[in-house]
Amino acid sequence: MDEHKIIQKYFSDVGSAYLAEQGVRVSVGDDAAIISNSSNKESIVSIDTSIKDVHFLSSMNATDIAYRSVAIALSDLAACGATPAWYTLALTMEDFDEEWLKDFSEGLRIISEEFKFPLIGGDTTKGSLSISVQVTGYCDPGKALTRKGSIEGDLVFISGFIGEASRGLRALQNDEDNTKEISSYLRPRARIDLGQRLIGIASSAIDVSDGLIKDLGHICSESNLGCEILIDDIPTSLTEPLTSGEINQGDDYEICFSANEKYLSEIEGIAEELKIPITAIGKMTKGSSVTVKDSQGIEVKIQDGYGHF
Amino acid sequence: MDEHKIIQKYFSDVGSAYLAEQGVRVSVGDDAAIISNSSNKESIVSIDTSIKDVHFLSSMNATDIAYRSVAIALSDLAACGATPAWYTLALTMEDFDEEWLKDFSEGLRIISEEFKFPLIGGDTTKGSLSISVQVTGYCDPGKALTRKGSIEGDLVFISGFIGEASRGLRALQNDEDNTKEISSYLRPRARIDLGQRLIGIASSAIDVSDGLIKDLGHICSESNLGCEILIDDIPTSLTEPLTSGEINQGDDYEICFSANEKYLSEIEGIAEELKIPITAIGKMTKGSSVTVKDSQGIEVKIQDGYGHF
Repeated sequence: MDEHKIIQKYFSDVGSAYLAEQGVRVSVGDDAAIISNSSNKESIVSIDTSIKDVHFLSSMNATDIAYRSVAIALSDLAACGATPAWYTLALTMEDFDEEWLKDFSEGLRIISEEFKFPLIGGDTTKGSLSISVQVTGYCDPGKALTRKGSIEGDLVFISGFIGEASRGLRALQNDEDNTKEISSYLRPRARIDLGQRLIGIASSAIDVSDGLIKDLGHICSESNLGCEILIDDIPTSLTEPLTSGEINQGDDYEICFSANEKYLSEIEGIAEELKIPITAIGKMTKGSSVTVKDSQGIEVKIQDGYGHF
Repeated sequence: MDEHKIIQKYFSDVGSAYLAEQGVRVSVGDDAAIISNSSNKESIVSIDTSIKDVHFLSSMNATDIAYRSVAIALSDLAACGATPAWYTLALTMEDFDEEWLKDFSEGLRIISEEFKFPLIGGDTTKGSLSISVQVTGYCDPGKALTRKGSIEGDLVFISGFIGEASRGLRALQNDEDNTKEISSYLRPRARIDLGQRLIGIASSAIDVSDGLIKDLGHICSESNLGCEILIDDIPTSLTEPLTSGEINQGDDYEICFSANEKYLSEIEGIAEELKIPITAIGKMTKGSSVTVKDSQGIEVKIQDGYGHF
């Protein structure tokens, strides 16, 4: 079975129902894809690699691996407030296993359907299992959210719950049966709808991949500010309290953002409408780093977030 | 050293002189890059992964590895006749070696400078060394060259020389001193200028990565035609004749294209002007596959091209 036929069979029609509306004239199977530019928009582009036993467990079902790899790339678009348009895929596999590929392509189909965006091209190679997904979305010019733009006094918010996915990963590793947490890990929800609604409201935003405190640190450094977080306000769905390690464990793929206090009720309305919990956890301050305090106002030491090296 | 600082230090200013002219408003270092769409153009998008000891030798200098990884991705844009606009990079490395990264980033700088296009985003992860490069370029609407479009009777052309790079790879593996061939392998020339000039002339085009005969087969299948190649007409710079294996070895990154005979003198003019040899090697015919013949008109069996699986 040659690479070209593999691509044809499993990848040429993923999300293909959306090719026309996304202006894709030539898709999977040629030297390159060809897309009509959406002239009154800006393109938002991000690439994310998922590596076996770093970003997913090799024991996971290929459908979950595919879904998760695209979802975490989409999460960057969500943090910008972008609408997904299309994606490309670079898939490196150890061997040719048709069953695995069939399951993998099913995961792509599910997320393409969910976000109504097609796979338009890719590359398959042989090597240690790894998946790079490059996503492109659109925003109105000048409107995309970035890490820069927080103002002193802005409130800091987080969507969803922190620590659920990392506990799900631990459950998977230990063969425990925590269905909800495991599902948070296997199928992270890219917060596309939330990001879009935050345009014009959030002064900065980031998706939480490496750890809440670590990623919030990027908002601080890009905005030339510090921020103060109340540990008791960090939302969790877990019955046991979050440990200081879990707070910064990453894999949450929630949106952390800052916004002026005047938008508080509007943000509460968005949370209710989208049925996504949004919690105020602190405030942007002078300074250059994130401080976490307990209810007595005493600083809490938080473990470092995820680092590859 | 954290990932964010690595990116800042080695990747944030690669080709940054070209950000403004390519309409890139936010580049490396945020959740995503933000680009103003070039409204009167189509975007041409391709992604290519280079894997250690498959697409390059791990013994190679990191500067060559970087250059080569971007060049082979650009080669797909060349085959479409596109003008490079920007690229993103997903780099997976085994460990953090600052010297290696410095050399790698130098290779990116060289090719960014050569094609005047910036690196605008990426991802660094830990794992077996692999490099995915996603390139985007622009074409006038409807003008990009594809694999589809050959007409029966069209002449088939190839740029440059076949087999030089694969002999260079062998020389590298055997520690031989074939400077010219080795350089063809280490620093493939993306034929961007040629691709652009072929718009309106070529009826179809492909870049030769997996082998001349194999890649030409894609033009045949996409165009619903066959083609007949004369083995003695396949251009080579080598002193010894090409073996049937070398003809289809791949790694050439030359442009194979078809065009009506009436463009012959125009194509000769382009070859002369760009100082790139362009050779007619056969003709599109009825049928569905590539036939290679010797000077007596007897069919020559050619070894299969490169396949990952």
